[in-house]
Amino acid sequence: MKVWEYDVVVIGGGPAGYYCALQCSKGGLKVALAEKEELGGTGLRWGCLPVKKILDDCKVLNRLKIGADDLYRGLLSKRIGSYKEEMVIVEEKMKEKLLEAKVDLYFGEGAFLDQYTYQVEENVLKTTYMVIATGTSPCGFEGFEVDGETIVAHKEVVNFTSLPETIIIIGGNVEGCEFASLFAEFGVKVILVEKQQEILQGNDKDLVEPLEMYLESLDVEIYKGLGAKTIQYHQDNKITIVLDDNRELETEKVLVTGGRKPNFPTGIEDLGIHLEKDRIIVDTDLKTNVPNIYGIGDINGILGMAHVAIQQGIAVADHIIFKNKVTMQYKELPRAIFTIPEIAGVGYQEFELLEAGISYKKGICKLSDTWRGFSKGITEGFVKVLVGENDKLLGIWMVGDDVSEYVGLMGILIEKEITVKEIKSNLMVHPSLTESILEAILNVE
Amino acid sequence: MKVWEYDVVVIGGGPAGYYCALQCSKGGLKVALAEKEELGGTGLRWGCLPVKKILDDCKVLNRLKIGADDLYRGLLSKRIGSYKEEMVIVEEKMKEKLLEAKVDLYFGEGAFLDQYTYQVEENVLKTTYMVIATGTSPCGFEGFEVDGETIVAHKEVVNFTSLPETIIIIGGNVEGCEFASLFAEFGVKVILVEKQQEILQGNDKDLVEPLEMYLESLDVEIYKGLGAKTIQYHQDNKITIVLDDNRELETEKVLVTGGRKPNFPTGIEDLGIHLEKDRIIVDTDLKTNVPNIYGIGDINGILGMAHVAIQQGIAVADHIIFKNKVTMQYKELPRAIFTIPEIAGVGYQEFELLEAGISYKKGICKLSDTWRGFSKGITEGFVKVLVGENDKLLGIWMVGDDVSEYVGLMGILIEKEITVKEIKSNLMVHPSLTESILEAILNVE
Repeated sequence: MKVWEYDVVVIGGGPAGYYCALQCSKGGLKVALAEKEELGGTGLRWGCLPVKKILDDCKVLNRLKIGADDLYRGLLSKRIGSYKEEMVIVEEKMKEKLLEAKVDLYFGEGAFLDQYTYQVEENVLKTTYMVIATGTSPCGFEGFEVDGETIVAHKEVVNFTSLPETIIIIGGNVEGCEFASLFAEFGVKVILVEKQQEILQGNDKDLVEPLEMYLESLDVEIYKGLGAKTIQYHQDNKITIVLDDNRELETEKVLVTGGRKPNFPTGIEDLGIHLEKDRIIVDTDLKTNVPNIYGIGDINGILGMAHVAIQQGIAVADHIIFKNKVTMQYKELPRAIFTIPEIAGVGYQEFELLEAGISYKKGICKLSDTWRGFSKGITEGFVKVLVGENDKLLGIWMVGDDVSEYVGLMGILIEKEITVKEIKSNLMVHPSLTESILEAILNVE
Repeated sequence: MKVWEYDVVVIGGGPAGYYCALQCSKGGLKVALAEKEELGGTGLRWGCLPVKKILDDCKVLNRLKIGADDLYRGLLSKRIGSYKEEMVIVEEKMKEKLLEAKVDLYFGEGAFLDQYTYQVEENVLKTTYMVIATGTSPCGFEGFEVDGETIVAHKEVVNFTSLPETIIIIGGNVEGCEFASLFAEFGVKVILVEKQQEILQGNDKDLVEPLEMYLESLDVEIYKGLGAKTIQYHQDNKITIVLDDNRELETEKVLVTGGRKPNFPTGIEDLGIHLEKDRIIVDTDLKTNVPNIYGIGDINGILGMAHVAIQQGIAVADHIIFKNKVTMQYKELPRAIFTIPEIAGVGYQEFELLEAGISYKKGICKLSDTWRGFSKGITEGFVKVLVGENDKLLGIWMVGDDVSEYVGLMGILIEKEITVKEIKSNLMVHPSLTESILEAILNVE
């Protein structure tokens, strides 16, 4: 047994833990990071980032359309095996940055000894502050428990080395729709099953429609308002999914999305930390009821999103170093869905304004109606601007190629209650697709 | 002679006049637009936009790199003749939008009869407000007057139907550097001559360096600190340019950039409008000393840039309709240079802060060091963030593919004196290249 002394021990090397450890160390603290498996977590190694990487490849190939569909899909499917290797770079990059910042890394199974002590194999880490950033894991749901072979979750999918002929995706949420785009692009027969009446619930219909049309053009079958009831296994490795209406769908693989369980660190139950079934309870400073222990990222159940995790990591580092209050702006949360086309934006959507009884005006501009859209030969996509009383900007939402990149720092504009007049009197680069926001505003009036 | 009555007559159908006429008409006013030649002006028809369109094509082909350089250049040079035709779409689109908004169009030579009356051929337009938006024209400079054949300006270049073997570009300004990128991409031998010690003066060296390296990799010869003195014509259509140091450079074409003369409308001299040699003098509401006459766009000499022209057009429309004060934010002017790579940003540059004696800190993040950069396979480009006292954001500058699109509405952030803390507590889309701004900020500390 070796005993080491630290200012901060971070448990979990996903986005939350990584940024927290880096920032604490840059702030002059002595920091250790403990990771059970590999750096990166769901956000950077096993989910979000690899999916975006594969989709970004699809998007480039789509833009080329050099050859026939077959050639394109041939190019893609040759790539599928190599993603697994490429993602190793992410781990190496993270390791390099952490070591450069003088964060000590401990790999292996760990456990709490007390609120100031965490053990990783033969190393005992003593610390002033403890940050739990252990995230969550996919678990499927009753009757559809992930077995890693037939019933898979994102972690298995991003490591596929060959493509199935058919895949049923359970859940028309962001994860399900991104995977549906991805597999459909690769030429896999995709069946998407969504219990709700619409896919991508929580988004205005006009934003989702172009994606739905695109998926249908790639022969994706979409079942809405129907849950998956049971699964039947056959001898030839095929399986059948039975839907709520007793319809039977045959497939090679089933991807379950959404269902997740918390990765509680071993020994947490003896610390007296307030827990719920699926999360660690934290206060507005992301601190647990045990005063030296924080809970950041997916494990605190606030919002299971990588960008939330990243900024919680940074905010807690600032809280430990400078005693800064943790102020997280979730109201105007920028969001993006990396499907083809992409959907992205900030602030309210129309359905939210209608639900809340907030009156608004709307302006729309097609990307093809901007000068840069013409210059780039863009044919699809649009920007929607929602404007409230006193001309306050309530929301900006976009559909199209690469729109995830155009949201930028717009969250701050919503937070600062910027008005349409201020946008009009400010300048924007010409020609640029941002001008679609100006045009949409001009179309409101 | 026919006499027509209007609320507003706009003279000139470039970006300033177009947006002013559209907005006035949408605001319920009766509007006429008079244009001597074709809609679009330097910004949309004869300069800025067509250059960006050709460069956007180069950038897509560059991203592909499907075949050998020869194939790529073959594809490009086949396109050169077609740009002229394609740009006709711009005119048609503008005409359609103006007619849709019920703006009356008058094409042909025009002249002022008095401050309320403008005549276009047999039509006499009587009006309450008059808006002069006639722009400027390239004129070359002494000894290098544009002849449209050997000595050309942007207007001729965007209408080239075949490529010269060699071109000397006089002026390493934005226009000169964009054309240098363009011709070098097409495989034309380019010689760039800049009187100042550096190309793209008014930009930090680290922003310009990647462009310079790129141009040199395409065999562009760059002469700095040397002006062009004289020109010698030879019998075989070749010409020789003599530089200040008596060096002689042979070429087929000479492109002069920068030198411009105002397009004063006929009859303006009898209205008593205060003029300077190269511009109409306007007040902060963009009004001339004749109270019903405005001067917008390049003709007022404020800043010869299309995005300034566009928003002056919109601002004057709002001033006429709502009596809104014209508040134009030029301090944090977003700017982009559409070279390969692109350079774009808002706020102060380092050399300006140094000149003004404003203390600052700097943070840099390579685009390849972001998760999206990895996902997209980006290898070049960076973001530089300049932070002042009290952590105020002073400037954001970027170099790389497509960075002109990422500046977005960031001008408002500088104007509102947003702090680094506010950016850190706000969320941004993950993964997105915008995260490079967050990373650059983290690198400051």
